Amino acid sequence: MLTIPVRTAESYEIFIERGLIDRSGQIIRAVAPQNCRKIAIITNRRLSELYAGRVTATLRELGYEVIFCLMGDGERFKTLRTVEKVVGCLLSQGLGRHDLIVALGGGVVGDLAGFVAGTFMRGVAFVQIPTTLLAQIDSSVGGKSAVNHKLGKNMIGVFKQPRTVIIDPDVLSTLPQRELFAAMYEAVKYALIADSDLFELLEVVPKTASALLSDRRLEELIACCCYIKADVVSRDERETGERKILNLGHTLGHALETVTGYNRFKHGEAVGYGIMFASSLAKELGLITKEQQDKIYNLVRSFGRLPSLDGIDSGVLLGAIAKDKKSVAGRAVFVLPNGIGKVVIRDDVPIEVLGRLLNRFLEQGL
Amino acid sequence: MLTIPVRTAESYEIFIERGLIDRSGQIIRAVAPQNCRKIAIITNRRLSELYAGRVTATLRELGYEVIFCLMGDGERFKTLRTVEKVVGCLLSQGLGRHDLIVALGGGVVGDLAGFVAGTFMRGVAFVQIPTTLLAQIDSSVGGKSAVNHKLGKNMIGVFKQPRTVIIDPDVLSTLPQRELFAAMYEAVKYALIADSDLFELLEVVPKTASALLSDRRLEELIACCCYIKADVVSRDERETGERKILNLGHTLGHALETVTGYNRFKHGEAVGYGIMFASSLAKELGLITKEQQDKIYNLVRSFGRLPSLDGIDSGVLLGAIAKDKKSVAGRAVFVLPNGIGKVVIRDDVPIEVLGRLLNRFLEQGL
Repeated sequence: MLTIPVRTAESYEIFIERGLIDRSGQIIRAVAPQNCRKIAIITNRRLSELYAGRVTATLRELGYEVIFCLMGDGERFKTLRTVEKVVGCLLSQGLGRHDLIVALGGGVVGDLAGFVAGTFMRGVAFVQIPTTLLAQIDSSVGGKSAVNHKLGKNMIGVFKQPRTVIIDPDVLSTLPQRELFAAMYEAVKYALIADSDLFELLEVVPKTASALLSDRRLEELIACCCYIKADVVSRDERETGERKILNLGHTLGHALETVTGYNRFKHGEAVGYGIMFASSLAKELGLITKEQQDKIYNLVRSFGRLPSLDGIDSGVLLGAIAKDKKSVAGRAVFVLPNGIGKVVIRDDVPIEVLGRLLNRFLEQGL
Repeated sequence: MLTIPVRTAESYEIFIERGLIDRSGQIIRAVAPQNCRKIAIITNRRLSELYAGRVTATLRELGYEVIFCLMGDGERFKTLRTVEKVVGCLLSQGLGRHDLIVALGGGVVGDLAGFVAGTFMRGVAFVQIPTTLLAQIDSSVGGKSAVNHKLGKNMIGVFKQPRTVIIDPDVLSTLPQRELFAAMYEAVKYALIADSDLFELLEVVPKTASALLSDRRLEELIACCCYIKADVVSRDERETGERKILNLGHTLGHALETVTGYNRFKHGEAVGYGIMFASSLAKELGLITKEQQDKIYNLVRSFGRLPSLDGIDSGVLLGAIAKDKKSVAGRAVFVLPNGIGKVVIRDDVPIEVLGRLLNRFLEQGL
C-alpha cells in the first residue's frame, strides 16, 4: 500500500492500493470520530450499483449503521438544490454531528459531498473514495469543494479536508476510455509543475485504457500526482499564494469550458489545451525552449485526439479569460512552465501577445 | 470607543460606540483586503431605508463602490434559496474574491450574510454591523453562521469569523420594545456563565426601552456580553468543548421554539424560560441554593412578562429535547448554573428528574 501524507491544519493520509475498497471499513474506523455510529454514503445510482455493496459490507462488519443518499450523475446536479435534498436525506435518517460522510464517486460527488460535509451542522467528518482517475489524482486531494451557481461554476464552496482518501485503482476499470484519458492532462500538469521524472513516466505508460489499467506503474502515477498536490496544498491550504500554481492550464481551460457551455470538452481535455497554450506563452516569453515546447505538445497529443476548437472566437475567449475567478482587477493570471518541473505565475502577459498567440492557437486548430 | 479583542485563528476587534455607524467606512478600510474595490451590503428593505444611506456615504467617501443585496425580513428567509439569490446578486454586480461583504442587520441577516461570506468563492472578507440588541451582544460575535433546512433550524452552516464587528447602540432606537428585551435574557445568560458583576448591573438597569437606550451603562452592558462571548469563543472556536457553555438556557429554549413552530417565542424569550428551567435543575441537583434560584428567577422576570406556556405538552417537549443537535446519543445535555458566574455541563440528569421538573415547570405556567 502506498501512503501519502497531507499536512494541512488537520493532517491526514491518502492510501493507494488495488482492491482497497474492500478494506475501507478498517481505514474509516481509524479516522472516524469516537462517537460515530452512522456512516452516510453520498453517491449516484450507477456507482451505488457497482460499489456500494462492497463498501457497506466492510462497514457493517465493524458495527456501523450505513445510510445512503443518492444524487444525480453529472455537473448539472452540483447545485444548492441538491445540497438541500441530500441534507434532508441525512436529517431524516438521523445523521448526527459525531457521524461521518463518505463521498463515493468522481469529482461531482466529491465536490457536492465535501460541501455537505463542510456545512452539515457546521461540519462533520468526511472521507473520500474517489472512483474516477481525475478524482484520484486531483479533485479528491486538497480540500476544495463547491457547487455551481447558474451564473458561474464552483461559485459557492468551502475548504473541507477529508479525514482520509481511499484510492483503489481497480475501480477505474468501469470508466469510459475518454474519461480515463481526460484525466491524464492533469497528470501532465503535475509533471510540469514539479516532477520531470513523472513527465518521463507519462511519456512511456501505455496509451490504451486496458493496458494502462493493468500496468503496475498506474499506482505510482497516481501516487506521484497526489504527492505533488498534497505538497503544494500543505504549504498553502487556502490558496493565498503558492497553491495558484495548480492552475497551470486552467486559465485557458476554464475559458474554453465556459464559452462552449461545458458541453464540448471534458474538464481535463480543456486543461490539455490550456497546457499547450501555456507552453506557447512560455516559449514566447523565453521561459522554455522550442524543444521543450515540442516535448510538452507531443506528450499532450499522445493521449488521443482532443475535441476540435472549431468555431471558437478569440475575442469571446479573451473576454472569458478576463472574467475568470483567478483574474485580479481584470488582469489575466497565467501559470507558465519554466523548464520542465517548474512553473512561474505571471499576470503581466501583454494583451497583444495574448491575442496574437490565441489567434494562432485557434487557427492551427490543434 | 470600547474595543473588545477576539482571539480566533484570525483575530479581530469589536468596536462599540454611539454614532459609530457614521464612521464605519474608516473601520472597514482598516480591515479590508488590499485589492478590495467593491463592498456588498447584505440587508433587508426596512434596514436599508433606515441606515444604508449613512453606511454607503462613509464608504463612498473612501472610494469604495457599494452594492446592495436585499433579502426578506424574518427567519423564514434564512434558507439556501436566499443564498442562491444573494449569490446571484453578488455575481451579477461583479463582486470578486478580494472584495468584502457587510452584514447590516440582526441575527437573520448576520447568519445569512455570514454563510454567504463563508462560501462565496470559498470565502470572502466579512464585516458585521449588527442592528438588534440580540445581534450586538450575541449572534454577531463568534463566527457561527447558518441557514435553516425544512427539517431543522441552523442545520447548514459554516464557521466564518468577521474581520471586525461595528456596534452602534444608537441604532437600537428603532427596535420594538419586545425585541429589545428578548435580548436581555441572553445577557442574563452571559452573567450566569461568567460575571456576577454583570448580573448586578442587569438587576439595576432601567426596565423600559427608552430609559435603557439612553442609559450610559448600555455600552458597558453590551461590552460585557461581547467580552464574555469573545473569551469563550477564543478558547474553543469550533465548539468542541468549552464553547458549549454558551448553550445555557438553550436546551429547553430550542425545544420550546421547536414545539411551538417558532411562532410563540422570540428566541431570547425561549432562552429566558430555558434559564429558569436550568436554575430549577441546578437547585434540584444541589448546584445552587434556593436563594440563588430566586435571584435568577427574579432577574429573568424583571424584563417583562414572557409569552405563556399554555398547551405545551411535557412529553412532546422531552422528545424535542432528546432530538436536539446538542444531544449525544439521545442523552440531553444541559448547561447548569453552579452559583452565579459559573456553570457546569451535565449529560447525566436522570430522565425522571427531568420529567418531574418539566411537568412542574409547565403547570406553574411561569
